[in-house]
Amino acid sequence: MLGGRVQLWQPREGYRAGTDPVLLAATIAAGAGQSVLELGCGGGAALCCLGARVPGLRLAGVEIQPAYADLARRNLVDNGLEGIVWDGDISDPPRALKAESFDFVMANPPYFETGKGLAAQEPGRGTGRAGALPLGDWVSIAAKRLKPRGYATFIQRVERLPELLAAMDGPLGSLELLPLLPREGRGPRLILLRGRKDGRAPFRFHAPMAIHPALIRDNAPDNYTERFRNVMQQGRALPFEADPG
Amino acid sequence: MLGGRVQLWQPREGYRAGTDPVLLAATIAAGAGQSVLELGCGGGAALCCLGARVPGLRLAGVEIQPAYADLARRNLVDNGLEGIVWDGDISDPPRALKAESFDFVMANPPYFETGKGLAAQEPGRGTGRAGALPLGDWVSIAAKRLKPRGYATFIQRVERLPELLAAMDGPLGSLELLPLLPREGRGPRLILLRGRKDGRAPFRFHAPMAIHPALIRDNAPDNYTERFRNVMQQGRALPFEADPG
Repeated sequence: MLGGRVQLWQPREGYRAGTDPVLLAATIAAGAGQSVLELGCGGGAALCCLGARVPGLRLAGVEIQPAYADLARRNLVDNGLEGIVWDGDISDPPRALKAESFDFVMANPPYFETGKGLAAQEPGRGTGRAGALPLGDWVSIAAKRLKPRGYATFIQRVERLPELLAAMDGPLGSLELLPLLPREGRGPRLILLRGRKDGRAPFRFHAPMAIHPALIRDNAPDNYTERFRNVMQQGRALPFEADPG
Repeated sequence: MLGGRVQLWQPREGYRAGTDPVLLAATIAAGAGQSVLELGCGGGAALCCLGARVPGLRLAGVEIQPAYADLARRNLVDNGLEGIVWDGDISDPPRALKAESFDFVMANPPYFETGKGLAAQEPGRGTGRAGALPLGDWVSIAAKRLKPRGYATFIQRVERLPELLAAMDGPLGSLELLPLLPREGRGPRLILLRGRKDGRAPFRFHAPMAIHPALIRDNAPDNYTERFRNVMQQGRALPFEADPG
């Protein structure tokens, strides 16, 4: 990942990290010495991408599936990063996690609720794609683990925007939306939502980030927008604030 | 308006209709014989634009300021349209309005809440821009006046998207968002949100509609996108469904 800067062990079967954790990690505006917690960190893809972009962070994760938690620990070490990964259920967090607070919390919660229609279309993906915990619980746990004025950032399917926005509007403030378009001029399939603990700024809706340009360019090495390529292959940040227009 | 198809009397001072009611009216997917109610119809700009685009509608409005209600009646007549405009407060609707239900309800609620920070920046605009009624009340009144499977559509400042979405998610379903960009590649300033009574479809986030193109074209007669020009000058519809990508 990130043009070879991050190399990950991934399971032969089950959930494998794609572009979503890379994009999530790219939006975290953390600096050296600050702390970042990922809820449901899986195999640690987002933590490794973030650690590779920003040296000197205090990285932490919690993961309910022990095999993925092991993988996350191994991936951190093999990418030369320090961090702590707790085995645990975020609805009943380990005591050591509950004793800490963080400047940033990030999460890529399961995209489908267990037992609801769409989950059945993703069999065998395990808790990586379908989970029993409502988004509101993810948000309230994130808010509890944040330091004052800290940021929580979520990536999620666009269909759950109303649910996620309602869950964040209260425990968090200064909400900001960054839609991810499959192609310029289309509607988004994924959204990034960020909130700030104790934030009081009005809601902001940022210019979307597109993965593919509206027109295909024959002489392009791939068919990505420059902004997407910079994030995925150059390991650049994806700030909520940027307005490319 | 609409390239001269609609001519409006507007007050010399106070709130005057701009592009917002034209865009709102353009999204209403009504057909001949169907009924449309506008909550807070002001001087009737949206009703007149809708009536000019779709013949044979049953048009109705309710307006709290008697001078604007009179203006709306005059504008309907002078544009050759039939319709009824009630004087009244939507939080305590006239009895005759409460006896009716509609296929479509539309509204352009005041963009600022009375007594809140931003309202003070718009002095003298009267209730056209600042209102005491929470968005949740506008939504619940719209839902009550809708026929089963009817649509309610709101246009609003983007900063109030979380509040409006939360208010609509419950009394209405099958929510759909259409952002309005000042320029391609920018974030929106206004949003259109539509919900359906008894709707159960997942939330949809449509490709945004831009007013100005990303690049200025020297030979263009104005600096509008074709889609915006078609709505504003040709009186075309602005369907939520359209995906220009």
